[in-house]
Amino acid sequence: MKVNVGVSNRHVHLKKQDLDILFGTDLTIKNKINQPGQFACNEVVTIKTEKSEINNVRVLGPTRNYTQIEISKTDAYKLGINPPVRSSGCLENSEVVTIIGPKGSIKTNGCIIADRHLHITNEDKIKYNVPDKINVKISGIKSGIIEVNVKASKEAYFEVHLDTDDANAFLLKNGDEVEILDV
Amino acid sequence: MKVNVGVSNRHVHLKKQDLDILFGTDLTIKNKINQPGQFACNEVVTIKTEKSEINNVRVLGPTRNYTQIEISKTDAYKLGINPPVRSSGCLENSEVVTIIGPKGSIKTNGCIIADRHLHITNEDKIKYNVPDKINVKISGIKSGIIEVNVKASKEAYFEVHLDTDDANAFLLKNGDEVEILDV
Repeated sequence: MKVNVGVSNRHVHLKKQDLDILFGTDLTIKNKINQPGQFACNEVVTIKTEKSEINNVRVLGPTRNYTQIEISKTDAYKLGINPPVRSSGCLENSEVVTIIGPKGSIKTNGCIIADRHLHITNEDKIKYNVPDKINVKISGIKSGIIEVNVKASKEAYFEVHLDTDDANAFLLKNGDEVEILDV
Repeated sequence: MKVNVGVSNRHVHLKKQDLDILFGTDLTIKNKINQPGQFACNEVVTIKTEKSEINNVRVLGPTRNYTQIEISKTDAYKLGINPPVRSSGCLENSEVVTIIGPKGSIKTNGCIIADRHLHITNEDKIKYNVPDKINVKISGIKSGIIEVNVKASKEAYFEVHLDTDDANAFLLKNGDEVEILDV
């Protein structure tokens, strides 16, 4: 089974209280992304640690009931922190960073390296008998097979989400096609 | 068969003429690296393109008969260039960058993304019947299998060289152990 890749650059999800502190305004839509109801915002923040900082980190909307900062291992080295690899929303023992917006700043936990995951509807997961972990084959001059978690939900756009380290290691770009070996 | 990983950060090899222009001195040893006769130098340069620059790029010695700049795909995006994935010394259609040293600067081709490769002696390659390409299994929370070229030479320290994108995608550090599946 073939599937397209969505490459996730570092980004931030905000809860309403943190949005109010950082921006004091509602989020505004820059462009919709493939996952239903999700969008990239015009709003960007700075992620700061004792060691370093990264500017122009995009906020993804809408607001959630938790604040989460998703970065790559490459970013983590730059920032001097060691975030765990996690699924969205699993923030136990996540790293603490300072988020700086135009109106204010917060120091919060919630910094993770997102796991590699496949978005699929609950219906399609059953229909195509997709297991909870899949092996995804990547062709090309830097080829290989990576293990990917399956994240089924009621509404989902079928795609594999990889961070920029995975994408760059395999020379993948947004929209590239890869193969699910197990289905 | 198990093998340790050597993680290659961005670095530069210089030919004697370019060393003279950039530094006007001989290379000095900071520390020896695992491959016989090779060493990290105290000397560092800046790599510059029209779009951006990267400072503190380490020179590896001794001098070679070609100048070669090895960067990651992540670096390539920052610099706005598209270097090919190549074995050391294969510089046809490599990218052009400016190298800036304390004494002078040069604009040169030779910028590549190094291929994933296994260093092994000619003798061991035959003894263990190692093919020209191998599959290397990486365990852990971000696991997978990557294709790696085999680079046999008269003298070699047995290790797999990966760049920082590969290492960070699989959460590998220098000296970590991985498994060669084909041997």
